[in-house]
Amino acid sequence: MKSYSRADLEAVISSVAEVDAALEKHARAHLDNLTKPIGSLGRLEDLAVKMYMASGGHAPKSDPARIYAIAGDHGVNAENVSFFSQEVTRQMVENFLRGGAGINVLANTSGVQLVVVDAGCAGGPFPDHPNLIQRKINCGTENISKGPAMTEEDCLKAIFLGIDLADEAYSDGIKTLGTGEMGVSNTTPSTALYCAFYGLEPKFVTGPGGGIDAEGVVRKIGVVCNSLIANKDAVKTGDPLAILTALGGYEIAALAGLIIGGAKNRQMICIDGFISTAAYAAACKLCPAVSGYSVLSHASAEPGYAGVVKELGRRPLLHLDMRLGEGSGAALSMFMLRAAANIYNDMATFDDAGVDSGN
Amino acid sequence: MKSYSRADLEAVISSVAEVDAALEKHARAHLDNLTKPIGSLGRLEDLAVKMYMASGGHAPKSDPARIYAIAGDHGVNAENVSFFSQEVTRQMVENFLRGGAGINVLANTSGVQLVVVDAGCAGGPFPDHPNLIQRKINCGTENISKGPAMTEEDCLKAIFLGIDLADEAYSDGIKTLGTGEMGVSNTTPSTALYCAFYGLEPKFVTGPGGGIDAEGVVRKIGVVCNSLIANKDAVKTGDPLAILTALGGYEIAALAGLIIGGAKNRQMICIDGFISTAAYAAACKLCPAVSGYSVLSHASAEPGYAGVVKELGRRPLLHLDMRLGEGSGAALSMFMLRAAANIYNDMATFDDAGVDSGN
Repeated sequence: MKSYSRADLEAVISSVAEVDAALEKHARAHLDNLTKPIGSLGRLEDLAVKMYMASGGHAPKSDPARIYAIAGDHGVNAENVSFFSQEVTRQMVENFLRGGAGINVLANTSGVQLVVVDAGCAGGPFPDHPNLIQRKINCGTENISKGPAMTEEDCLKAIFLGIDLADEAYSDGIKTLGTGEMGVSNTTPSTALYCAFYGLEPKFVTGPGGGIDAEGVVRKIGVVCNSLIANKDAVKTGDPLAILTALGGYEIAALAGLIIGGAKNRQMICIDGFISTAAYAAACKLCPAVSGYSVLSHASAEPGYAGVVKELGRRPLLHLDMRLGEGSGAALSMFMLRAAANIYNDMATFDDAGVDSGN
Repeated sequence: MKSYSRADLEAVISSVAEVDAALEKHARAHLDNLTKPIGSLGRLEDLAVKMYMASGGHAPKSDPARIYAIAGDHGVNAENVSFFSQEVTRQMVENFLRGGAGINVLANTSGVQLVVVDAGCAGGPFPDHPNLIQRKINCGTENISKGPAMTEEDCLKAIFLGIDLADEAYSDGIKTLGTGEMGVSNTTPSTALYCAFYGLEPKFVTGPGGGIDAEGVVRKIGVVCNSLIANKDAVKTGDPLAILTALGGYEIAALAGLIIGGAKNRQMICIDGFISTAAYAAACKLCPAVSGYSVLSHASAEPGYAGVVKELGRRPLLHLDMRLGEGSGAALSMFMLRAAANIYNDMATFDDAGVDSGN
C-alpha cells in the first residue's frame, strides 16, 4: 500500500478553495424572484445558496449522490464501552452488503447510492462484493486508553483512502457525498476527539452510544479521560493530524479525507451524526475551507452533540432524535438537498407565471 | 349544491375511531427486533408506530400520497393585512396548475400527487383543468373584522367538501393525505382562530405572514382584535363550528373536513404549516380523535406558531424555517413517512441478519 507524507496532505489541503462569499447575492436574487414570499422556503433556500456557492456559481445539482459507509474496529472496545460486541462491526458490514440495515433502507428511500468500505475492520478480508471496497489499513486500532490509536503513517493512509473515494466519486459524476460509518465503540474515539479539539470535558460529551446504561456511561467517561491522558503529548500539540492519529479510527480518518477530497472537488458533503461529525471536526481543523461544502445533516440524539455543534458554529438540518449513524441522517439530508436544488431550478419566476410580486 | 346540518357532521365525527393505544407495544416490539440499537431511528420509529396504530394494526404504508391544495379568498384582505393583493390567490392557483409553484416542485420531489381545489376564490370559475376540482362555495369570505366570515350553512358545505375529498382519495387508494392551501390574507383568520380556540392574545400569535413589515404586523394585530370583538358572541360560545364559521375561511373549513374525513378513513394526514394547523386545531376541537391520524409536518417560521404547538401538545416533525404554506411542509413530511414505513417493512431482524443483538 502506498505511503503518504504530511506534505502530500498539505498539497491536497491547499487545493481546497474557499467558497466565494460574493456568490451568495446572485443566488439569493434568483430565489427572491421565484413565486413565493421572499425567504419563505427557509433552510431549503439556504441549501440552494450553499450548493450554488460550493459549485462556484452553477445552478444547484445534488444528484447523483453517494454515501460511503466506511467501517473500522476499535481497540478501546476492550474497555467495555459498548453495548455490542466487536463482531457486530463485521456482521453489520455483511448486513449492509445484503441490504438489511437502516442505511440500506434510507439510501434506497432517498434514491442515493451506497458503497461500503473496509478501512480497518478486525479479522481478515471480506468475500468480494460489488458494493464493497476493501482497503483495510489495519485490523482495528490500538486501545486509545493505553496509547495512540494508530501510527501517523496509517492515519495518513486512511485520510488518503477517503480522498481517493471522493475522487472516484467525482470521476463517476457524483455531485453529493454522504459520510457513513460502522464501527462498534466508535463513539468513544469520537468523544475523545471532540474533547481534544475543543477542550471539552468528557463528562459533558460522553453518551450512551449504541445503548449502554448509566453505569456504562460513567465507565465510558473514565475511558475517555484515560485516553486523553494516555495521549496527552499529542493533545498538547494542538496539531490536528497528531490528535486524529492518537485518538481517531481508520473509518474516522478516512471520512475526514472524504470530506477534504469532496471539498477539493467542489462536491457537496452531507455529514451524518456523532461519529461523522468528529471526522468533520478533524477535517475542519486540518482545512477550515471544507465548511463551505458541508452540511450537518441532522442533530444526533447523543447528548453531547449539542455542545459539539456549538463549537462548530453550525446548525444541523434535521432534528429527528436519531442516533444510528451508518449515514442514515446523511441519506435523509440528501433528499433535502434535492428538494432545494429543484426549488432553485424548477420554480416559476413572478414574471413567467404572471403573478404580482407584492406591493 | 347539497346542504348539510350539524347532525350530518356529528354523524361523521362519531364514525372517527380513537386509535387503539394497545397497538403501540406490538409496533415497538417489531422495531426493537430490527438490526439497530433500540430506538436509534428516533422520530422515524415514532412515525412508523403512529402509522401502524392509525391503520388499526397493519404494516405501515404511506404511499400513494396526495396533497389537496385548497384555495379561498378572504374579505379581511380589505384591511391591508397582506403583502400581496387578492388577485394573487387566483394567479397562484393558475401557477399551481401550470406546475411552477413551490408546492409543485416539492410534491414532485417527494413523489406525491397534487390536486388543486377552488373552495372559495374571488371571481368566477377557472377554466377546466384535469388537476383542478371546482367546488366554489362562495367568492371569498366576508370581512371578519366586521362580522362573521360565512354562514354556518356555507361552513358546513366547506367541511363536507373536505370530507368528500378524503373519501375520493380513499377510493383512489390514497394512504396519506396532505393539507395544502392558497389564500391571500389567510394568516389573519388563522390567527383569529388560534386566539379564539385557545384564549391566546393576538399580539403573541400575529406575524408577518407573506411578508408585511413591522408596521403592518401592528395593524394586523389590531385587525385580529377587531375580528374577535366583531365575532365575540360566537367566540364566547366556545362552540368549534360557530368559531370556525365566524373567523375561518372556505379553504380552512375544507381542510378541517379533509382531516376529519381522513381520520374516519384511517388515512394518515400530514398537516402543513400555520394555516393548515388552524384547520387542524378546528378539527381537533370538533373531533379530538383526529390527532391519532395526524402529523404536524413542520414548525412554521411564523413567530406565533411555537405557542400554538404548545397548546396542541404536539411536536412538529421538521424544523426548516419554512413559512410558504401551499402544502410545502406536508410534501417534505410525506417523504419522512415513506422512510419510516420502509424502515418498518424492509430492515432485517437480528436473527435474519445473523447480527448479535447486544449483551
